[in-house]
Amino acid sequence: MVVKVYGPAYGSTKRVLVCLVEKGIDFETVPVDLIKGEHKQPDYLALQPFGAVPVIQDGDCTLYESRAIIRYYAEKYKDQGTDLLGKTIEERGLVEQWVEVEAHNYHPPIYTLTLQILFASKMGFTADENLIKESEGKLGKVMDLYEERLSKSKYLAGDFFSPADLSNLPFTQRLVSEMGKEYMIRQRKHVSAWWDDISTRPSWLKVKDLL
Amino acid sequence: MVVKVYGPAYGSTKRVLVCLVEKGIDFETVPVDLIKGEHKQPDYLALQPFGAVPVIQDGDCTLYESRAIIRYYAEKYKDQGTDLLGKTIEERGLVEQWVEVEAHNYHPPIYTLTLQILFASKMGFTADENLIKESEGKLGKVMDLYEERLSKSKYLAGDFFSPADLSNLPFTQRLVSEMGKEYMIRQRKHVSAWWDDISTRPSWLKVKDLL
Repeated sequence: MVVKVYGPAYGSTKRVLVCLVEKGIDFETVPVDLIKGEHKQPDYLALQPFGAVPVIQDGDCTLYESRAIIRYYAEKYKDQGTDLLGKTIEERGLVEQWVEVEAHNYHPPIYTLTLQILFASKMGFTADENLIKESEGKLGKVMDLYEERLSKSKYLAGDFFSPADLSNLPFTQRLVSEMGKEYMIRQRKHVSAWWDDISTRPSWLKVKDLL
Repeated sequence: MVVKVYGPAYGSTKRVLVCLVEKGIDFETVPVDLIKGEHKQPDYLALQPFGAVPVIQDGDCTLYESRAIIRYYAEKYKDQGTDLLGKTIEERGLVEQWVEVEAHNYHPPIYTLTLQILFASKMGFTADENLIKESEGKLGKVMDLYEERLSKSKYLAGDFFSPADLSNLPFTQRLVSEMGKEYMIRQRKHVSAWWDDISTRPSWLKVKDLL
């Protein structure tokens, strides 16, 4: 049974794809075009009532929310591929803590930057320069705390690669490659080394090249 | 060793307290006054560099982010007190999915309502009536999807009480008791029954009476 992943073109779905590659799980992708509104069609809403990507179908199991799907596969295939959850309950606690930090502190400003800088014209609105400046400021403050943390451990949750790192990949890649803001990474020594490490993992290179 | 919980007066900390009561774990609370800015003092930032509540200290383990702390204790004391994570990996997957829905769909509008309706004058700003109306609309749409879900299962993740339900308690209590918006619950039959169930659990009654 191959896992079906809906909406592979989008950042949050790519989190799931990296996880599947790290765990060595076969998958196929089903395109969902948000600009065309395919996520608001009845067939899609039957899978994901909130109209967001991603969703996965895996036999009888349908699951949405990228970070939930990642936890599901990290646990289900704990002994296959990269162990993403640490060796102890305490290590897993730190994974959860830093996944939450990514979700609630890092993601909101980087998502705003993505929409404002890369999608404004496609979505038919004018980019708000003040909001861009404010979001860059907020993201910079979170990166300062990442810098502090990464001066003490190789990855965010400890000395092992985990969903806390993985979840940062898709949007940070856009920040670096498409938004011209690589300097935000490079002016922070430990963040810079961490980025070089996680962004060259074979799993991420594979997902980047997928589309 | 008693668990120390910082910032018990606040909604996100109450999530953690309910979890500790459900699991039968002893704790003591340490007040943190956000209005006075105690969360921005160096001692506090050494525990929680983002300056948010809650944080817990449990022996050598310091952990923040309410939903991460809940997962940590739900797993660490899996066989003690209420089993919050389900019996199978699939059930836990649904717990994770609905915790993410609470975090990303339910929480943002109810948090905005809390700030605008209950804290605007304390925090020295004028409530924005348009934002209140917009947030109530957004929250109503999420409640419609809760209603649909709760017509099929007793609790959000399935037929067992889990962090997906628990995480809704503190802010929904304020919506009902302090914001005068109980009608949002009562006009939805299954949400109403679910609310009556979860808001009368002994754990929540104890946490409500704590302060």
